[in-house]
Amino acid sequence: MEDRKVFMKEAITLALSNVKNSHGGPFGAVVVKEGVVIGSGTNQVTASNDPTAHAEIVAIREATTKLGTFDLTGCEIYASCEPCPMCLGAIYWAKITKLYYAATKDDAAKADFDDSYIYKEFALPKNERTMVSLQMMRDDAVKVFEAWNKSDQKVPY
Amino acid sequence: MEDRKVFMKEAITLALSNVKNSHGGPFGAVVVKEGVVIGSGTNQVTASNDPTAHAEIVAIREATTKLGTFDLTGCEIYASCEPCPMCLGAIYWAKITKLYYAATKDDAAKADFDDSYIYKEFALPKNERTMVSLQMMRDDAVKVFEAWNKSDQKVPY
Repeated sequence: MEDRKVFMKEAITLALSNVKNSHGGPFGAVVVKEGVVIGSGTNQVTASNDPTAHAEIVAIREATTKLGTFDLTGCEIYASCEPCPMCLGAIYWAKITKLYYAATKDDAAKADFDDSYIYKEFALPKNERTMVSLQMMRDDAVKVFEAWNKSDQKVPY
Repeated sequence: MEDRKVFMKEAITLALSNVKNSHGGPFGAVVVKEGVVIGSGTNQVTASNDPTAHAEIVAIREATTKLGTFDLTGCEIYASCEPCPMCLGAIYWAKITKLYYAATKDDAAKADFDDSYIYKEFALPKNERTMVSLQMMRDDAVKVFEAWNKSDQKVPY
């Protein structure tokens, strides 16, 4: 079996094991660097009371901890399902180079996961979204960026 | 000072302290339930080698740990800067009811943060994005959702 299929099979197997163990949602992911799995994860939302503990985020955190860097440039991620906006954002911030996914966000929606709803909200102007979002005190906050820009101690990322 | 301003001032003060302490990016956030701060966070990306440790995610994780639930319905979040897509997704998954933010994603871009780039990527069709994204083995992954739908042990979220 080609390597890509082996890695995706691992992600899907993790997802299935999570259903069997009742540890969280039916999702799994692995992060691969130069042909070696350096991080793997299953959804742990309900088991850990952490709404951010999606499989991709768990796998990314394991990989960055293992490598001792926040930068996964050159790595691939294999996800049993198309990442939700939170996880897609995490994949970008981790600078992962390539994303492989199996099921789609519409498949997830059929299993009653909110991915499609969140994607729709993202596409709307802020004032048309269900979640209320208001801006305030911008002038005070901009001063923080000014302090950052002037700092000679900062570590860019 | 009205409560909202007190909470936003706390988020902005956290952001500024993070610059001074060189613990991570210039961002802070607090989660509030019924007028009480139940979670607070600063950006810890470089300090913890965790690309997902944005202020909002740190604050949400602290709040859900404290409450012992993954569901922050009825809570508000105050963020020193408009949340990036990852954090906005996390806010939706946590079911936070109201978001207040101060600086904008364009202010963040001027301080060399990638939020605007990621928002632009999200708006593009997958095949036009910089990050390569490929689907494979959907049939195998859909079987995991079928197992989930049939399971009588599942905890929906």
